[in-house]
Amino acid sequence: MSLKLYFAPGACSFVPHSMLELSGVAFEPNGVKLHKNEQRSPEYLAINPRGQVPVLVDGDEVITQIVAILLHLDAQLPEAGILPASGLARTRALQTLTWMNNTVHPTFTHVFMPEKYSDDEAVQKAVRAFAAQSYRGLLGEIEAMAEKASPWMTGERPGALDAYALTLLRWGGFAGIDPSTLPATWDLAQRFATLPAVARAVERERLVLNIYRPKA
Amino acid sequence: MSLKLYFAPGACSFVPHSMLELSGVAFEPNGVKLHKNEQRSPEYLAINPRGQVPVLVDGDEVITQIVAILLHLDAQLPEAGILPASGLARTRALQTLTWMNNTVHPTFTHVFMPEKYSDDEAVQKAVRAFAAQSYRGLLGEIEAMAEKASPWMTGERPGALDAYALTLLRWGGFAGIDPSTLPATWDLAQRFATLPAVARAVERERLVLNIYRPKA
Ligand SMILES: N[C@@H](CCC(=O)N[C@@H](CS)C(=O)NCC(=O)O)C(=O)O
Ligand SMILES: N[C@@H](CCC(=O)N[C@@H](CS)C(=O)NCC(=O)O)C(=O)O
Repeated sequence: MSLKLYFAPGACSFVPHSMLELSGVAFEPNGVKLHKNEQRSPEYLAINPRGQVPVLVDGDEVITQIVAILLHLDAQLPEAGILPASGLARTRALQTLTWMNNTVHPTFTHVFMPEKYSDDEAVQKAVRAFAAQSYRGLLGEIEAMAEKASPWMTGERPGALDAYALTLLRWGGFAGIDPSTLPATWDLAQRFATLPAVARAVERERLVLNIYRPKA
Repeated sequence: MSLKLYFAPGACSFVPHSMLELSGVAFEPNGVKLHKNEQRSPEYLAINPRGQVPVLVDGDEVITQIVAILLHLDAQLPEAGILPASGLARTRALQTLTWMNNTVHPTFTHVFMPEKYSDDEAVQKAVRAFAAQSYRGLLGEIEAMAEKASPWMTGERPGALDAYALTLLRWGGFAGIDPSTLPATWDLAQRFATLPAVARAVERERLVLNIYRPKA
């Protein structure tokens, strides 16, 4: 297994990034600077024509989509605890994982990149404001899950859902949501970020967990 | 295993619906009328507080999210061929499945239910028109995959990707996209719909495959 991960600091690629670190497997991390539009460079588009992170390269195979990357890693590194191994616990984790991926994450994309939904600036502004409100509600659903974490989202071992919860909460700061108003998720994110293995990914991305700035 | 599926005719629930039929397992189908807003009735919200289909009930357990439902069924009915069993073929199928679920499907939601993205009618109209254009591009990506189907999206056996491709193409009609302009997908959808097992789901949903109506 020869693994390479293309990630962008602070992006959703933190989910596979932290899982690779947690698993202890060797991998080559490759940073992509989204603010410099490196994801749209000819070199990067040759790797992923959709111009997004994360990308996992396993041998010669280019794999995209967070959930597919996680399931690919989980199949090869079952001892890493990325997801519960089987049964209803696994189904429940997949249910939350795919919901974060198909609902919460795209809602944030409306806040962060409203130009994906309209080329009219006034429409973009309206879409962003509405999505920021929806996003608050969705983080509230994650908060209810984090309140039941014991101690992690899927039980005794940290895994993919903790990484995604951290990422989504962190993005909330950009959407004007103070993480301390979601105390269980905020506590979970801080505990997760300071696990020694995860801290290596946090350090490599130079992640600041709380990016919320109160409006003056 | 006692299985119940809540589905709405023509909705994304066709994906698990057709997979249940294809697997040959016994299940109780329960129709939910979205046009009558039955998904927002107190009875339905007691089952799925998010007010959406599909819902799979396995014994006493309520499972939501298409991808989680499919993986749950696949773990219990491996011989059904919902997804390739393992290895890179499985990863590739999951990559396309999750992309359909997190990108193509939500893009159509902007066309079908723009009120989820704004409460201003002018903004809704702009969002819908822009999404219909994006959707055309995404169906083009599916068409490129369907051109390589031999004979099904994941190879020799029909599976979840064929069901999702059919559903997304069918929705295209609503977005003003003539399915005959995507001939490989259109051929795939017709072949899939007429498999005897799948035809039972098509019949139960009274699905008309081509809902495109040229503008007068
Ligand atoms: N559906 C993709 C979404 C990936 C995604 O949203 N990537 C973002 C970063 S969080 C990105 O690369 N955005 C850059 C762009 O779209 O230009 C997945 O699940 O992996
Ligand atoms: N993220 C969900 C999406 C399910 C979904 O979009 N369901 C639609 C039908 S295709 C629905 O129930 N819509 C009714 C509504 O939202 O009111 C999944 O993957 O299962």
